[in-house]
Amino acid sequence: MGSWKPRSFVCSVCGRVHKPGESEYTCVACYTGVLEPMSLSSAVLAEPIFTESPGMWRYERLLALSPEALRPPMPVGRTPLVPGGRLGRQTGLANLFIKNDTLNPTGSLKDRATAVVLARAAEIGAAGIAVASTGNAGSSLAGLAASMGMPAMIFVPESAPRAKVVQALMYGARVFAVRGTYDDAFDLCVEACKRFNWYNRSTALNHWTIEGKKTVAYEIYEGLGNRAPNMVLIPTGDGCVLSGVARGFQDLLDLRLIERLPRLIAVQASGSNAIACLLAGAPPPERVKTVADSIKVRVPRNGPLAVRDIRATGGRAIEVSDDAILTAVRDLASATGIFAEPAGAAALAGLQALRAEENIDREATIVLLVTGSGLKDIDAAAGIAPSPVVIEPSVDALQGLDLHRENASGSA
Amino acid sequence: MGSWKPRSFVCSVCGRVHKPGESEYTCVACYTGVLEPMSLSSAVLAEPIFTESPGMWRYERLLALSPEALRPPMPVGRTPLVPGGRLGRQTGLANLFIKNDTLNPTGSLKDRATAVVLARAAEIGAAGIAVASTGNAGSSLAGLAASMGMPAMIFVPESAPRAKVVQALMYGARVFAVRGTYDDAFDLCVEACKRFNWYNRSTALNHWTIEGKKTVAYEIYEGLGNRAPNMVLIPTGDGCVLSGVARGFQDLLDLRLIERLPRLIAVQASGSNAIACLLAGAPPPERVKTVADSIKVRVPRNGPLAVRDIRATGGRAIEVSDDAILTAVRDLASATGIFAEPAGAAALAGLQALRAEENIDREATIVLLVTGSGLKDIDAAAGIAPSPVVIEPSVDALQGLDLHRENASGSA
Repeated sequence: MGSWKPRSFVCSVCGRVHKPGESEYTCVACYTGVLEPMSLSSAVLAEPIFTESPGMWRYERLLALSPEALRPPMPVGRTPLVPGGRLGRQTGLANLFIKNDTLNPTGSLKDRATAVVLARAAEIGAAGIAVASTGNAGSSLAGLAASMGMPAMIFVPESAPRAKVVQALMYGARVFAVRGTYDDAFDLCVEACKRFNWYNRSTALNHWTIEGKKTVAYEIYEGLGNRAPNMVLIPTGDGCVLSGVARGFQDLLDLRLIERLPRLIAVQASGSNAIACLLAGAPPPERVKTVADSIKVRVPRNGPLAVRDIRATGGRAIEVSDDAILTAVRDLASATGIFAEPAGAAALAGLQALRAEENIDREATIVLLVTGSGLKDIDAAAGIAPSPVVIEPSVDALQGLDLHRENASGSA
Repeated sequence: MGSWKPRSFVCSVCGRVHKPGESEYTCVACYTGVLEPMSLSSAVLAEPIFTESPGMWRYERLLALSPEALRPPMPVGRTPLVPGGRLGRQTGLANLFIKNDTLNPTGSLKDRATAVVLARAAEIGAAGIAVASTGNAGSSLAGLAASMGMPAMIFVPESAPRAKVVQALMYGARVFAVRGTYDDAFDLCVEACKRFNWYNRSTALNHWTIEGKKTVAYEIYEGLGNRAPNMVLIPTGDGCVLSGVARGFQDLLDLRLIERLPRLIAVQASGSNAIACLLAGAPPPERVKTVADSIKVRVPRNGPLAVRDIRATGGRAIEVSDDAILTAVRDLASATGIFAEPAGAAALAGLQALRAEENIDREATIVLLVTGSGLKDIDAAAGIAPSPVVIEPSVDALQGLDLHRENASGSA
């Protein structure tokens, strides 16, 4: 990897160019702009571009990260891209695919970001690492930091979902339940990192998260036989996953491996539609409420970047109700065998909503990004699962049942 | 794959040889013996022995299954074998490895068995598929059957853990909560399969489950750089996973790819120690009780086979308390980033118990088999997780805390 060179970063708001290592977080001039690595179009990459390293490190030559940086030993990424199967047939879409990122080591796509950030933290000799999180980013950081032996501090709002907090605690992270909102937890995390010299993984602040998340786009490209899809539907809260997907496809375009960008569709809960508001020029929501906790965000710190990325691809936002999201959890699981948390299944709900508003070419190649495991939120699933059929241990008790119907509530 | 030939099966109890397809389940002569494929030592295998097929189908040429059988589209297996890292350093074992089978599509090793059984069911044209399960086998069958579009019927005792039942229901399986024990559910499943022409996946009855589970041994062999470990510690309930691991290493021995079998250690909860009783010639436990629901078995239907396999490798059983199991969940997660359900982490507890009883060579290559995800039993983890530190949103509130200590109960 002799040709690897550190890359400069450009502010996505004011355009200021930052030398490698000049800022780990946002722009040093305008303070708010998320930094992005310079285009790969002029980069001289070693061949082959994709390596045989495990998991997402297959794409190590496309990352702005030094190849010498110590990586977590837990393999991340290289998750399955599976054909829509019955879901494709049910929807009449011939080229529907599902990217199953529930199969990352802590159960969510966030592991891609965490892996790169941890490598960066190790490279610059951080004493510890911290994150503000509503759940998945925290449990992801806790798990992968544990695999490296780096102390992890997680700042969650007191209302954070129990399963994800328990998961982070079991990994041995120090978890702080902040009396306040996610925004309060975010601000406290920033201050604490300054005071205690911890590295800050918080999204929309730490640009290395996008470097990690972009690897999912490369995997979609390779999974489709080295081409871009026409459209990717992405569960969207603060928009960092969307910007990661956008960055990945932009890299492939810069490298002339693809000829156009896929349309990126931000799927939002109608009770938490800040990005949709931004796109429409409408005022932000005053309150947010949705069963899909991982995309519940009132003030999307990555909002401006996500809006730019959506517009650059001819994409849009689409809103879905909590009912539609929960139905999608069940539809996705029963048609494909992929059990997602509510936010994770939102992409399917978004596809259904989009088809009600637009004509979608039945031959279009469409990818649903499934971002988190359903085992992370059994309570949400339990709320809509049918009841088991309670039965005496006798085969005659079965005989009377309609065995070809789906489970219904109640006992037999 | 022109050289593939259907293989004959031999009864593990009475030795009767069965022609291919003669019985899907136990021996047609003695009724109780689990069938096993004939030794691979005389088989002529196509080269290369290991193929490039996805997941565990890499080992398709070593399975007694026809290569033409339709497979579930969900990739199963090829899970990480990771170095013990800090866990190795903590224990002073230089060559400790962890096989992380929590990363299978439904979160447990059972997916390996399910994949092969579903392919077999599809091959013989079953109208549906059923299983008796205490949890993981049921959710595994439900998930992979959904991915194939095959109707799945799950028979669980009424006491089955909620998360696993919800998972199976979300996959669209028909779940029957049988008023009775696992044994009642097992017997009802057998009768129902006869009456309704369903294929029966129940372990220790359907020998194809062992064909699937054996692939984990091949992966350990390859993950170690084409060699056998000295010892594998296996969470053990009815002993089918252990027999699968034994079968896999026996195949490798028959093929002369390894020179000796690893010692297989059956790790049992002390409150559910039926295999240990069998080995000791002691009467079986009258009641069983353990937090590790996946290895809670009073009458291990695969017991005789497991005992034979343990003895053939110079192995043994080791018993661990529920407290030790729960501590192992936390130790495993915090040292390696792998979050297991109680049964899944039992292998680590077993290693600690074994070292108290035996001198173990510090250079020995030891593999802990981690069989199921911790997200499947958040309640068990929550019972031992420390509490988050509740804190006001002020960095001064952090200053007073001992930040280098682990989380402790209570608020700051």
